[in-house]
Amino acid sequence: MTNKRILLDHGSGGAASRELIESIFLPRLDNPALAKFEDSAILDLSSTRLAFTTDGYVVDPIFFPGGDIGKLAVHGTINDLAMQGAVPLGLSLALILEEGFPMADLVRLADSIAQASRESGVPVVTGDTKVVPRGKADRIFITTSGVGAVPEGIVLGSNMARPGDAVLLSGFMADHGITIMAARSGLAIQSSIESDTAPLHGLVAALLQEAGSAIRCFRDPTRGGVATVLAEIAEKSGVRIELDEKALPVRPGVATACELLGLDPLYLANEGKCIVIADPGSADSLLSRMRGTPAGRDGVRIGRVVRDDAHPGTGKVILKTAIGGRRIIGPLSGEPLPRIC
Amino acid sequence: MTNKRILLDHGSGGAASRELIESIFLPRLDNPALAKFEDSAILDLSSTRLAFTTDGYVVDPIFFPGGDIGKLAVHGTINDLAMQGAVPLGLSLALILEEGFPMADLVRLADSIAQASRESGVPVVTGDTKVVPRGKADRIFITTSGVGAVPEGIVLGSNMARPGDAVLLSGFMADHGITIMAARSGLAIQSSIESDTAPLHGLVAALLQEAGSAIRCFRDPTRGGVATVLAEIAEKSGVRIELDEKALPVRPGVATACELLGLDPLYLANEGKCIVIADPGSADSLLSRMRGTPAGRDGVRIGRVVRDDAHPGTGKVILKTAIGGRRIIGPLSGEPLPRIC
Repeated sequence: MTNKRILLDHGSGGAASRELIESIFLPRLDNPALAKFEDSAILDLSSTRLAFTTDGYVVDPIFFPGGDIGKLAVHGTINDLAMQGAVPLGLSLALILEEGFPMADLVRLADSIAQASRESGVPVVTGDTKVVPRGKADRIFITTSGVGAVPEGIVLGSNMARPGDAVLLSGFMADHGITIMAARSGLAIQSSIESDTAPLHGLVAALLQEAGSAIRCFRDPTRGGVATVLAEIAEKSGVRIELDEKALPVRPGVATACELLGLDPLYLANEGKCIVIADPGSADSLLSRMRGTPAGRDGVRIGRVVRDDAHPGTGKVILKTAIGGRRIIGPLSGEPLPRIC
Repeated sequence: MTNKRILLDHGSGGAASRELIESIFLPRLDNPALAKFEDSAILDLSSTRLAFTTDGYVVDPIFFPGGDIGKLAVHGTINDLAMQGAVPLGLSLALILEEGFPMADLVRLADSIAQASRESGVPVVTGDTKVVPRGKADRIFITTSGVGAVPEGIVLGSNMARPGDAVLLSGFMADHGITIMAARSGLAIQSSIESDTAPLHGLVAALLQEAGSAIRCFRDPTRGGVATVLAEIAEKSGVRIELDEKALPVRPGVATACELLGLDPLYLANEGKCIVIADPGSADSLLSRMRGTPAGRDGVRIGRVVRDDAHPGTGKVILKTAIGGRRIIGPLSGEPLPRIC
């Protein structure tokens, strides 16, 4: 690219748009479906059950310890598919760019997207670029969608937790959320913490292979954190979930930063962690298998599903605290952490 | 919704996000896949060839004669699928909202999206909402993705035009582009023109049924208009395309507005028109069938594909003018019309 900055013309759909795509994205995201450069890609499926998801990424800052908005978008969409038990087949990439956005940053993001796609084995097969005038967007927003094939026999859902089930978490809480908040606050501690952004489809495939029929659901605790996801599961399944505070994994640096910033790690986003609700009889073997994967090596059991006797059918998450107390954990409310992803 | 305006909290992923989705979108976009409210939808396919597309919408103004950003996003993504010969199965809807965006406008857009989805028979099956602080985006950006099933035996591509082929256009040029430009300029004439935003999958299905094997490609002339799309086809197919200026359909009000604003209708966007390149032996029957559909009732033959003898393999579009001249038509370059879609 001869231009150092994004021009409005780069979003026109004409020659400058083509030049941008052909010089920056096609070489990095090379695959047969994308190379055809039609407005939609054609993929061959191994299954006729399709998972389909979308997510917009507006994270601020766009580069942060452990990742950037591009890597986050690739991983996030792969993970939304993986949480359904789907094998991710392809991603779409829609960019909204602010006029004047530095071309060097776009190249850096394209490299990062390409690397995340390559390492995950999930190609970007179609895309779109729009440019809005200066001041009409904040640098770059990325929306990724994804399609995946759902293997026969997989039935998962947030409404399927049953009393007795084990609650597993694949690693430390809040890494992504606190990294973003610390970066924005200029907190010096940020050098010791970084985003956990990572793809989870390998972990999911391993667990489904280990004991697929024992698994009720996978959920990744992104916006709203572990608390919000568990509150949703409890509500949809009409059960109570009891968490053991001592078992909740938080890195020391993250715990310190949370205290300094007055944030609760239970409500902070992860971008490479997975909650698994599973039959208790398979919980140990699942945990062991989890720990054998790169994404799940710090996996732990954090609680269990119980009958909601007090308020049957309404769902609730209870934290059993280290000193023996019990605290009700609701979904995130009234404390927005904007632009965390 | 009790709030009159979008708050940052509506993008948090917590309770306010859920309330927003449940009160505004779920009731309007009701379908089984969406109602499960997981992060990705699961669809059953009738085919294992999948079309997959994405597009970002940043049109300004967001409400305009004949449509709005929501309707445009639904139709645009349906059309990207249809252009591949695919039967659209489902759409995703990712919103990036500016804090303070009026809730009444969001409801109006949700109604419009729901109506467009219903009338097209293509459900919105998954979605995402992000909110950025005031001044960090311009009201609302919408990214829609879509999946569709490609029937067996369909082979289409912009690289498949052959000398002798007919070039058909399903109706008047430039309606969408000039409507947006006129609305932005405050041109009084705007009352007589409106966007042509419309779904094209019905038209495509009819033409494939009429003479599928005769069709080389479908393309919708959106950003960059008829000229840019034909230049791409000529280049990819290594042919020349000759257009007959007298045959190019432009509404009188559109022609007047183009003159006043100094814009060439060949380069202005449509959002409900289709270019069809087809074997000349089937051109008449395809045109007749086209005219029998709501989206194609003003369809005409606008030119033909010829061998590119002068510059073999490089492609080129030639306009044969009304007074007998010949003008080379290149793709859109250097004259961006920002935020036209």
